[in-house]
Amino acid sequence: MKAAVYFAGAKGLEIKDVPVPEPAAGEARIKVAACGLCHTDLHYLDHGVPTFKKPPIILGHEPAGHIDALGAGVTGLTKGQAVLVPAVLTCGECTLCRTGRSNICERMQMLGNHIDGAFAEYVCVRARDLIPLPAGIDPIEACIVADAVTTAYHAVVHRAQIRPGDKVAIFGCGGVGLSAVQFAALAGGHVIAVDLDPAKLALAKQLGAAETIDAKADPEVAKTIKKRTGGGVDKAMECIGSHKVIPIAHNSVRTGGRLVIVGFADKPVEMAAGKIMFMEQEVIGSLGCRPVDFPKVLELCASGRYKLGPLISSRRPLSQINESFDELRAGKSVRGVVIP
Amino acid sequence: MKAAVYFAGAKGLEIKDVPVPEPAAGEARIKVAACGLCHTDLHYLDHGVPTFKKPPIILGHEPAGHIDALGAGVTGLTKGQAVLVPAVLTCGECTLCRTGRSNICERMQMLGNHIDGAFAEYVCVRARDLIPLPAGIDPIEACIVADAVTTAYHAVVHRAQIRPGDKVAIFGCGGVGLSAVQFAALAGGHVIAVDLDPAKLALAKQLGAAETIDAKADPEVAKTIKKRTGGGVDKAMECIGSHKVIPIAHNSVRTGGRLVIVGFADKPVEMAAGKIMFMEQEVIGSLGCRPVDFPKVLELCASGRYKLGPLISSRRPLSQINESFDELRAGKSVRGVVIP
Amino acid sequence: MKAAVYFAGAKGLEIKDVPVPEPAAGEARIKVAACGLCHTDLHYLDHGVPTFKKPPIILGHEPAGHIDALGAGVTGLTKGQAVLVPAVLTCGECTLCRTGRSNICERMQMLGNHIDGAFAEYVCVRARDLIPLPAGIDPIEACIVADAVTTAYHAVVHRAQIRPGDKVAIFGCGGVGLSAVQFAALAGGHVIAVDLDPAKLALAKQLGAAETIDAKADPEVAKTIKKRTGGGVDKAMECIGSHKVIPIAHNSVRTGGRLVIVGFADKPVEMAAGKIMFMEQEVIGSLGCRPVDFPKVLELCASGRYKLGPLISSRRPLSQINESFDELRAGKSVRGVVIP
Amino acid sequence: MKAAVYFAGAKGLEIKDVPVPEPAAGEARIKVAACGLCHTDLHYLDHGVPTFKKPPIILGHEPAGHIDALGAGVTGLTKGQAVLVPAVLTCGECTLCRTGRSNICERMQMLGNHIDGAFAEYVCVRARDLIPLPAGIDPIEACIVADAVTTAYHAVVHRAQIRPGDKVAIFGCGGVGLSAVQFAALAGGHVIAVDLDPAKLALAKQLGAAETIDAKADPEVAKTIKKRTGGGVDKAMECIGSHKVIPIAHNSVRTGGRLVIVGFADKPVEMAAGKIMFMEQEVIGSLGCRPVDFPKVLELCASGRYKLGPLISSRRPLSQINESFDELRAGKSVRGVVIP
Repeated sequence: MKAAVYFAGAKGLEIKDVPVPEPAAGEARIKVAACGLCHTDLHYLDHGVPTFKKPPIILGHEPAGHIDALGAGVTGLTKGQAVLVPAVLTCGECTLCRTGRSNICERMQMLGNHIDGAFAEYVCVRARDLIPLPAGIDPIEACIVADAVTTAYHAVVHRAQIRPGDKVAIFGCGGVGLSAVQFAALAGGHVIAVDLDPAKLALAKQLGAAETIDAKADPEVAKTIKKRTGGGVDKAMECIGSHKVIPIAHNSVRTGGRLVIVGFADKPVEMAAGKIMFMEQEVIGSLGCRPVDFPKVLELCASGRYKLGPLISSRRPLSQINESFDELRAGKSVRGVVIP
Repeated sequence: MKAAVYFAGAKGLEIKDVPVPEPAAGEARIKVAACGLCHTDLHYLDHGVPTFKKPPIILGHEPAGHIDALGAGVTGLTKGQAVLVPAVLTCGECTLCRTGRSNICERMQMLGNHIDGAFAEYVCVRARDLIPLPAGIDPIEACIVADAVTTAYHAVVHRAQIRPGDKVAIFGCGGVGLSAVQFAALAGGHVIAVDLDPAKLALAKQLGAAETIDAKADPEVAKTIKKRTGGGVDKAMECIGSHKVIPIAHNSVRTGGRLVIVGFADKPVEMAAGKIMFMEQEVIGSLGCRPVDFPKVLELCASGRYKLGPLISSRRPLSQINESFDELRAGKSVRGVVIP
Repeated sequence: MKAAVYFAGAKGLEIKDVPVPEPAAGEARIKVAACGLCHTDLHYLDHGVPTFKKPPIILGHEPAGHIDALGAGVTGLTKGQAVLVPAVLTCGECTLCRTGRSNICERMQMLGNHIDGAFAEYVCVRARDLIPLPAGIDPIEACIVADAVTTAYHAVVHRAQIRPGDKVAIFGCGGVGLSAVQFAALAGGHVIAVDLDPAKLALAKQLGAAETIDAKADPEVAKTIKKRTGGGVDKAMECIGSHKVIPIAHNSVRTGGRLVIVGFADKPVEMAAGKIMFMEQEVIGSLGCRPVDFPKVLELCASGRYKLGPLISSRRPLSQINESFDELRAGKSVRGVVIP
Repeated sequence: MKAAVYFAGAKGLEIKDVPVPEPAAGEARIKVAACGLCHTDLHYLDHGVPTFKKPPIILGHEPAGHIDALGAGVTGLTKGQAVLVPAVLTCGECTLCRTGRSNICERMQMLGNHIDGAFAEYVCVRARDLIPLPAGIDPIEACIVADAVTTAYHAVVHRAQIRPGDKVAIFGCGGVGLSAVQFAALAGGHVIAVDLDPAKLALAKQLGAAETIDAKADPEVAKTIKKRTGGGVDKAMECIGSHKVIPIAHNSVRTGGRLVIVGFADKPVEMAAGKIMFMEQEVIGSLGCRPVDFPKVLELCASGRYKLGPLISSRRPLSQINESFDELRAGKSVRGVVIP
């Protein structure tokens, strides 16, 4: 089969012919319909963040597709069924899985990181976390639910806990950030979206943001937010992972408010710990989403309350994956998907 | 009356004769029985942290005493009654007071900071937050409930939310830290106390710590805690306010765990924000305690479940307050109290 | 002034000339723009539920209007200002007020119950809980925020805690029930509205209900809900107060789900306590709303996210208040308002 | 092997010779060291509550013992290892298991109910939920952790959420009730224990209750509790399952407080739903305990903070199991254990 393989130190991915993988006991093989491209992939490609599986490795952790083959002992799934593959697969047995926090499973397997991913025609994964797609959802559009959409759902619903009337600032309007905008608005929040790109801010408005701030034009974003909200937002969400933006997001939060860190920062961040204490704030992380929450998210998509279409900025064949990464790198895409 | 006054830039406090203050409408005058000394006072004296009221100011925010006079319109209190004065007085009207977070009241008045404090024979404060002392509690011992004890109660019960079986690391065994040790043990937690001073660690053990770590002897405290607990504590509490200790406390927390910042750090702290995100942790502040919680704390003291005596390391007349601060500065005291 | 007075044992209200009340210290007098009619009033009129103030009493607890006069010591309000008067006024001093639960204030004063209400040209109340109306809200429409709308907000946001994707059954589509439908939808819930009246169900759909059940046509509502949801809703809200409906609402809840009792039942209810235990469910009450939450609700109204208009089924002069109660009694109105 | 078998309609259990069971794939066989007797067993024997597996069935759901044999595919356990067997085994795959609520697993298997239990020399169960016993715990004493102790832990920690200073009334001082007394005290609660038997109340005091009420001597228990606490307890726990006691427990709760139903009531209960609403209370169920919490509980036992010994009122050979049930039926035992 064709697959986009990452070799250590390479600048891009290489399209190679590799053997079709065989599902082990408890696994399923999925014929990939589409797979989304994520900033996390750029962390491997451009910033030296190592994958757990030593390269060469097939990247790609945001796929949907159809069941192609089932390993021994798998029940409840049938060949041909359309399924979503969570970006991170869970063990179901560790303390964190058993206490309802499987998104930080102690033995998690991330596609395109711990194991080969889905920039390929086929991918094999543990079957227990596969989520059947409801009727009326296009598997090509659905693929971005596997990471961008569900990561935002978890961050908004479980970590930021947005409630009707909450004031929320969302920093970064990429795939995860715009999903967070959409969910925060869906949860009744008053959303202030922040980005450097007016086109993305326009999309944020279309997806439910009540206000926007162009951070290129405004050198004092935190001050502006405080002024507009009379003291700061109830909750801020940093969806970039920038050691420079996290303190700004922090500064935009009111006394007693909460900052949720959704983006992965690979550099240490200078935090005003005295302020966290004196203003009794909360700075909390958010990672991925539990597979058990995926059906709820897919229902919101199927009912039209969450809109997938506007998030998908390009669809390309797998052979053009490097061009798609170029767009992402240049900040020109929200969520590109490749179709093997 | 005699009072210990802080003059801007002075190294110590000056014992002066000042007029006895008169209670305004809604206020009460308290004849101070005793007032505790706190590291916060050292922040003004030694580290240049400014008080809200411009010096000269009478410091001291941890008093108990007896009602001496009542301003117009005060009901429910009687002359001679023994009362505790919360370190921070609340307005009762702002959004935070009305949502049950009066410890971060928007118009808080801290004794010895926003208004004159209680290193004096008398002090005048808003009457609404005065807490009658239950029978059987010595006002001299009770004074430390006004800050050290209640700050720890709030941090343990409302912010760390210690539950039976939780593993808890407490960094710093001063007045607040040792109170946190005692409350965390009282709440059923398995406490690991960390300090540089073996004498304080011995006291921590006596007050309920299950384990201790001498940070002078162990250069890898976080590693030790992770090893002993099999991956990190459920909750860590930093009760010092050190930009060097906060990251160590953070490193001692397990995936999905919580760091509570109880000490005020006046320097920015280098935080591993990527870790907060990837391990989905919570870093939250804790400030003071709501006056409404004081009666619960006093009942725990009156019933003997919380022990005040061991926390009080010295009792001195007001005239020796500078010697008492010297002890605190030298790390030789837990909680010194002065008696006017 | 004209007022609609309730005399003990009378069937209707009597329009009388009574003296204009004078605001005491801390109080304000409001010139009433409009006041909504509530099922609670019918409890006094028709079901013998006694008011705390012995009749004769002016009923009416859902007013908005303009500040007409201020008692001594009131600050922050100005004559002529448009304000909302919460149905229940709070003391700000009791333990419940101080722990953020002022909606169950130990010394609450309900208009038209503990004190004279607002079916009158003027009403005097404690000034501390008056909420300025934001620009662009009609005081006549806004009056129903004082009870029907905010009661539903509190029930949905704080008690049911509806989150995006939650399945919610709402029993009773009167003023509070339809407000709950609207807020539950606004919070991202999938709402199933239940009522006996097809017209109200149609309005529920218009206000955001995803599904409806006509309880007249369906003798097995709980079974239908369980079937449609695959085991029961996450949360059910009973907005009627019927001892017959509460068990049906209970039966519609899934294992681990929650029933919120929003309607006041004056008869004991046969509850399957064994089921609450074995299915580990929660049956929780919801009463009114904290004044501190009113500004958030008014902002949702002002931004158009919550629609007041469709809730108001009739506007009549005060002189026709008994006709308006007849409509309510006959189930023909959602929320009638009277204009003095 | 010898086993105590329940035949439909029989008054007692019959000691029979039955084949030693063979562990299926994923199962383990445990040589039973001891098994506790529970009121739930009396529900089958005396009150006609049916078991899910049709009798004849071996009852007994509170065992500890040693691994005797392992079915195919079981890893992480070794023959001879001392283990606790949770009363209820979980699937790990259903929505409730995956959201951290495995105690209400949709496919739960309760020993001595869905499957053959542990009043026998050997028992076979799914291996995934077996909990290794820590050093220093006697397997004979440990058996009661499988149900009585952990059920109380879950009820106190996760459902009642007892915190330092909370006032807690516990109704019923049998095995579960006394465990709840012990955990509520361990969590810092001020416990008022209620029972009809002075001997059990004396034991409650020994295990940490601050106060007791002899319900035989006091016809107005709720009133007494309200008087002693100034308005009612923060939390009440009903550990009996009596339709007569649940309303009394409800009446003992303060405005804004919580009633936890821990005992299974097989009759409907007349609840004051209007009071739940008007006093904004919470009535919530508590069922069993998640296996993932067992290690925490066992550590509390191993450290001596929770005392198992006083709970065990008798130890008898399996052959005397009916005599042991007679004691339980007569209210003469706290927790009897039988040793095969």
